[in-house]
Amino acid sequence: MNDLLAKLQQCLGEGGYLGQDEVHQRPAGWGLEEPCQALAILRPQTTDEVSKVLALCYEAGQAVCVQGGMTGLVRGGVATSDEIVMSLERMREIEAVDTVGRTMTVQAGVPLQRIQEEALEQGLFFPLDLGARGSCQIGGNVSTNAGGNRVIRYGMSRNLVLGLETVLADGTVLSGLNRMVKNNSGYDLKQLFIGSEGTLGVVTRVVLRLERRPKSHSTALVGVESFEKLLGLLSVMEDDLGPQLSAFEVMWKSFYELVTSGPARTPPPLAYKWPYYVLIEVLGSERVRDAERFDEVLAEASDKGFLSDAVIGRSRRERDGLWAMRDDIEQLDRLGPHFTFDISLPIREMNAYVNGIGRSLEARWPEVKWVVFGHLGDGNLHPVVGVGDASPAARQAVEEIIYDPLQQIGGAVSAEHGIGLEKRAYLSRSRTPQEIDLMRRLKRALDPKGILNRGRVFEI
Amino acid sequence: MNDLLAKLQQCLGEGGYLGQDEVHQRPAGWGLEEPCQALAILRPQTTDEVSKVLALCYEAGQAVCVQGGMTGLVRGGVATSDEIVMSLERMREIEAVDTVGRTMTVQAGVPLQRIQEEALEQGLFFPLDLGARGSCQIGGNVSTNAGGNRVIRYGMSRNLVLGLETVLADGTVLSGLNRMVKNNSGYDLKQLFIGSEGTLGVVTRVVLRLERRPKSHSTALVGVESFEKLLGLLSVMEDDLGPQLSAFEVMWKSFYELVTSGPARTPPPLAYKWPYYVLIEVLGSERVRDAERFDEVLAEASDKGFLSDAVIGRSRRERDGLWAMRDDIEQLDRLGPHFTFDISLPIREMNAYVNGIGRSLEARWPEVKWVVFGHLGDGNLHPVVGVGDASPAARQAVEEIIYDPLQQIGGAVSAEHGIGLEKRAYLSRSRTPQEIDLMRRLKRALDPKGILNRGRVFEI
Repeated sequence: MNDLLAKLQQCLGEGGYLGQDEVHQRPAGWGLEEPCQALAILRPQTTDEVSKVLALCYEAGQAVCVQGGMTGLVRGGVATSDEIVMSLERMREIEAVDTVGRTMTVQAGVPLQRIQEEALEQGLFFPLDLGARGSCQIGGNVSTNAGGNRVIRYGMSRNLVLGLETVLADGTVLSGLNRMVKNNSGYDLKQLFIGSEGTLGVVTRVVLRLERRPKSHSTALVGVESFEKLLGLLSVMEDDLGPQLSAFEVMWKSFYELVTSGPARTPPPLAYKWPYYVLIEVLGSERVRDAERFDEVLAEASDKGFLSDAVIGRSRRERDGLWAMRDDIEQLDRLGPHFTFDISLPIREMNAYVNGIGRSLEARWPEVKWVVFGHLGDGNLHPVVGVGDASPAARQAVEEIIYDPLQQIGGAVSAEHGIGLEKRAYLSRSRTPQEIDLMRRLKRALDPKGILNRGRVFEI
Repeated sequence: MNDLLAKLQQCLGEGGYLGQDEVHQRPAGWGLEEPCQALAILRPQTTDEVSKVLALCYEAGQAVCVQGGMTGLVRGGVATSDEIVMSLERMREIEAVDTVGRTMTVQAGVPLQRIQEEALEQGLFFPLDLGARGSCQIGGNVSTNAGGNRVIRYGMSRNLVLGLETVLADGTVLSGLNRMVKNNSGYDLKQLFIGSEGTLGVVTRVVLRLERRPKSHSTALVGVESFEKLLGLLSVMEDDLGPQLSAFEVMWKSFYELVTSGPARTPPPLAYKWPYYVLIEVLGSERVRDAERFDEVLAEASDKGFLSDAVIGRSRRERDGLWAMRDDIEQLDRLGPHFTFDISLPIREMNAYVNGIGRSLEARWPEVKWVVFGHLGDGNLHPVVGVGDASPAARQAVEEIIYDPLQQIGGAVSAEHGIGLEKRAYLSRSRTPQEIDLMRRLKRALDPKGILNRGRVFEI
């Protein structure tokens, strides 16, 4: 072991290797109080360094935990005491922007927000967006196939990646920095590494697809009387706004009350009269006309009875205010100790599902506090449940209630957060034994010694 | 062998098994005069039958060639005399349409056009479209990651698939009929089978993502003075029309002349004055306003000098006429024996590339006839070259000229047609040895005996 550590240290030089003292000064993960427990933290600066240190670890059969911005929510990047951490934090260069082909080539450790800003500076737009934008890194976004607020229009991370450079467990560098929208020359290998949570290879560089910069933003918050009307509203919005509809974020009343009552900073833009509130965003390509059109479509939806109340964010400040309200997830702490979920299910099953889990939770814990919000257009909900008890037993009891009904309706235990360690026990609720067997087969084919993010997603 | 054939016949019953006589009555492939050479043709009707016959073949180590609608252009589905053909032609049921979740579940043998029509009947839209729509089958579209005319807006087949049921070489059924836009529950296994040309598994059922039906179609043909202006035009269209721009099909003058001069049925809508002609399509969501907006954007492009001449398809008949002209690829026969290519390359390299291959072709064959057309917005070009000689030696000489310069500029030898048998020798121009090695590793992991579409894409 000491021999391996000495070789790794030699390989990475000053600043590239952190020993025990420095390891323990870092937290184990986002929002966790316990310190990091790894044997060492490796901080390579180049793909070549990633390759060399992985080859050494592979030869020694040493488990490696790959870390990006550490903002994941399923403990995928939390290292154990027998692992070595590889952090991509020093690979943070934006290497190239092609404004004609609309691509950006970046190293894995670049924070999402820097990519968004660089795209805007070049007159273009990178649509991936999530609350952790300032801390999360693009390598992690890609490895976990991050979703976020604009999936309804632009898709998940998978849709925004044209090319990938990855390093396999044994140090082999796979150079697949494709820059074209269309390339059917052999297997599309990058798909293996997107969303497999670092278990099949380490993403070192990414070619991203950039979009045109939208010329107009329109945002509204609306109140809706029933779930049926919510579906009607979504239908009108999709039908009349077409692909310009970029977000359709639903808040059940419980969540809306939480983020608009003190100590939350935003007073309620609409009265507490409706069971559902929806934040609607449209990104258009005609500055003046788009706002008029948005008003027309909202008026039409109102005439049809699909919405009962609305406030439109006219200025940038007003629009940002509506989003800040929706994003104020710190208010969830007012539920007491709580568990956050990330599930997807067919939209037509959603109402019965939410009512069903509500009944089960309230039967079991009469004092339960629970709220629901999510990306309705994508079939993605985030129930958050506080039962006054954060013990593993309580967690498991809540998990059973949330996950149990999903299997029958074809739902998924993870929509956008991934499996990591936290949901591993529930993978079989969403996937068949044959599928999980094939995942293992792939793991063995790409990482025969099982050194990369061992035990994440499934037990090997 | 006879033992295996007897078992297969027994398994599939009447109509499910075609012996030698019937095999020889079928052509080997689309546009080929030679008869099919396979040992037998299997025509399973259910996933269970696919599984059973594959298990038998796998046990016997018998090579199987999987066939869809046989409209592929790279000889991927052309069977050899030691193979058994498995055709999905009897699995042609549309099983379910969910108009709320906007999904359609279909069997692999359903022709693309039936899916398009069913979607329209349900008030929805399936955007995948290509010339072979009446004959090609969705299983083949998915297995080859088909592209077509609307990739600029809707993406390739990969983007339109939510779930897949596949059968592995050994008969294992992988049931991954996911219906949700977001599902990060473990590896996204369907990605393995999309675009791997039937070498890793047989697609038996597909869950497709449907789109809203557009409310307006606008189509124009324009003439452009230079390649620089062509890029300016694309930029204005993308910028002003946003995601409503659904096609930007460029014809080099040589191609335009071919499809608008006798015996072609369409007289030239614009004079032969320009080096480039572009067919532009916009799918919008406001019936009246969209046509006005399209006119405005074209006028703006004209004011900026990006287009020099234009004709707008006002009626459905006029629009269809413009597309029929572009799709009249039978005129290519007037080049004499010819070779058709399907390449992609960064847009900013395109002009120099096309001029370069032109110089090389004309230097080698002063009498060469060659045309170029393609999906410019996707970086996808189709050069078609006739040198008066269809011999393998002539083919190879032309291929060298087309493929050689691609490697240096990061282009690809296949954009949307795949590799099959025809381009296998050139795979290494687009992919690294490490990538091809990983493809082989995947093949061995999923099909250790190498029975499925053996030798397609790469030699195993």
